[in-house]
Amino acid sequence: MKKFVNDPKDFVPEMLQGLALANPGTLKYVPEYNLIMRTDAPRDDKVSVIQGSGSGHEPAHVMVVGQGMLDAACPGDVFAAPPMDYVLETSKLLASPKGVLHLINNYTGDRMAFEMGAEMAEADGVRIGTLLVDDDVAVKDSTYTVGRRGVAGNFFVIKAVGAASEQGADLDELLRIGNKVNGVTRTMGMALTSCTPPAKGSPLFELGADEMEMGVGIHGEPGRRREKLASANAIVDELLEAVVSDLPFQSGDDVALMINGLGGTPISELYILYGRAHSELAKRGINVRRNYVGEYCTSLDMAGASLTLTKLDDEISGLLSAPAEIAIRTF
Amino acid sequence: MKKFVNDPKDFVPEMLQGLALANPGTLKYVPEYNLIMRTDAPRDDKVSVIQGSGSGHEPAHVMVVGQGMLDAACPGDVFAAPPMDYVLETSKLLASPKGVLHLINNYTGDRMAFEMGAEMAEADGVRIGTLLVDDDVAVKDSTYTVGRRGVAGNFFVIKAVGAASEQGADLDELLRIGNKVNGVTRTMGMALTSCTPPAKGSPLFELGADEMEMGVGIHGEPGRRREKLASANAIVDELLEAVVSDLPFQSGDDVALMINGLGGTPISELYILYGRAHSELAKRGINVRRNYVGEYCTSLDMAGASLTLTKLDDEISGLLSAPAEIAIRTF
Repeated sequence: MKKFVNDPKDFVPEMLQGLALANPGTLKYVPEYNLIMRTDAPRDDKVSVIQGSGSGHEPAHVMVVGQGMLDAACPGDVFAAPPMDYVLETSKLLASPKGVLHLINNYTGDRMAFEMGAEMAEADGVRIGTLLVDDDVAVKDSTYTVGRRGVAGNFFVIKAVGAASEQGADLDELLRIGNKVNGVTRTMGMALTSCTPPAKGSPLFELGADEMEMGVGIHGEPGRRREKLASANAIVDELLEAVVSDLPFQSGDDVALMINGLGGTPISELYILYGRAHSELAKRGINVRRNYVGEYCTSLDMAGASLTLTKLDDEISGLLSAPAEIAIRTF
Repeated sequence: MKKFVNDPKDFVPEMLQGLALANPGTLKYVPEYNLIMRTDAPRDDKVSVIQGSGSGHEPAHVMVVGQGMLDAACPGDVFAAPPMDYVLETSKLLASPKGVLHLINNYTGDRMAFEMGAEMAEADGVRIGTLLVDDDVAVKDSTYTVGRRGVAGNFFVIKAVGAASEQGADLDELLRIGNKVNGVTRTMGMALTSCTPPAKGSPLFELGADEMEMGVGIHGEPGRRREKLASANAIVDELLEAVVSDLPFQSGDDVALMINGLGGTPISELYILYGRAHSELAKRGINVRRNYVGEYCTSLDMAGASLTLTKLDDEISGLLSAPAEIAIRTF
């Protein structure tokens, strides 16, 4: 296994510890619940926005806790939903008079943990709202899902509700905004390679040297089909057609375009994908007004990428351009 | 080859085209010279800061062109120095009355191209200053180097001279600042895997499934030795000892700490390395005042990391915290 790891069972706690050490003024790590939270949360004047999911998708979600994004994230172990009591305790710690918003990518395990956690938190007097993200057009129902999977498009939901919550929006308003953004967001991804969970120590699935998995899930779940490796342009064209035709996006639409790396793909290659996607969208009369190229929701060390489009209107554009301050910084 | 690529000879131009399409207001792509430049450069009131190197190290250097960082970058092909005429034409296009600063990582090919380019630009009336970066403590002299190699530590030099140039510093002052930062910056890296240049289509060197290369160069050049895979903590401890003992950094020092991924390593693992490095520095009485965790200077899709320390004083801290606006953004 070619990874930086000590004892695999410490993989997630050591990552969270490193994250907290790197952000002493703004982030707090609560080891009992795998919890990363803002040091200034909860605030009485703001709904607390929290997300939990399996680990292994970093920066999602622990590295996007911060002003204008999440108030906390309570991840499970690698590719495992957070335990229900992590959700409960996180909700109680983050309880605000304005309530707590649970943001959940649509996987059966995550939904179960959050549904039970929400029920118990509500019994303890915490007001909870729940928002599901299901942007992945690759497959309807899948290995770990009833309905579509939630993948990298959830960043647009996080950013929009994070911004609105800073502006004082109440829980109902955040649910309206989050559902609206999810409703105009579509993603599809593909894998060039498998990925290796630290505790397993070997690739999660096998993919031949001349093969790729089109429509792969972020836990290596099967996609639409396995096929011969194609050129960067052919890959983009297929992802784009799947995403554009699904909403559908139409000539004259303004969009945000995200090219998301799955963990093992260098940013040089992501810009090659971006260039093709931008140009092909222009040919369709679809205008890229905002773009995101980098790693947002990964699958450990998987080489691969996903493409996300979100349809913009004035409200969504305003929320996406609001200030945010998270752990991942550039110079 | 598991890469997003069309015709390998278009790898660099297509990446640069994508980068420019993603940044229409701020970056301009000049295909004749592989040139990425700020749309507002050159400015009469500012020294132009330019860097060239081989491609394959992204985000270095084309993706850090922007306000407070580089005014332009003229990369060569993957792992190849820019042709001398790219350097010349870039210098002429970026000519400012205050002069042009050439920032060069210490590799023989890059130095030759920039020395000849500078000479010819000066013959054309452009005032040139030259700054060498050689932060890599792994080896003295190497495959492509007389003296130490320049690697990820060059970001601290870019950031410092970029900030000072925005504040109106003249060429001599930028040379002083750049040499000062380079003088207190030390790096060492290591590889878990090889990397695959698009035109070659196969790994640049072979590394066994149970091996790592300690002190590797960013073009896969040999380091100090090849050895059995070690734990994340043992790897950090060796990199840290090499870097700390070289300057040396001492108890009471304030430092910036960078954990740089080499292209194929997920950010989850980089934070595990960060946590160990931060804690071990604390034990030595060395205070991490600023930190950088992510990809800054990569080797295509190599799994691996480097560790950089820069010793801070008030001047350097001020320059590192100055505003900057580059292509790689977060939410």
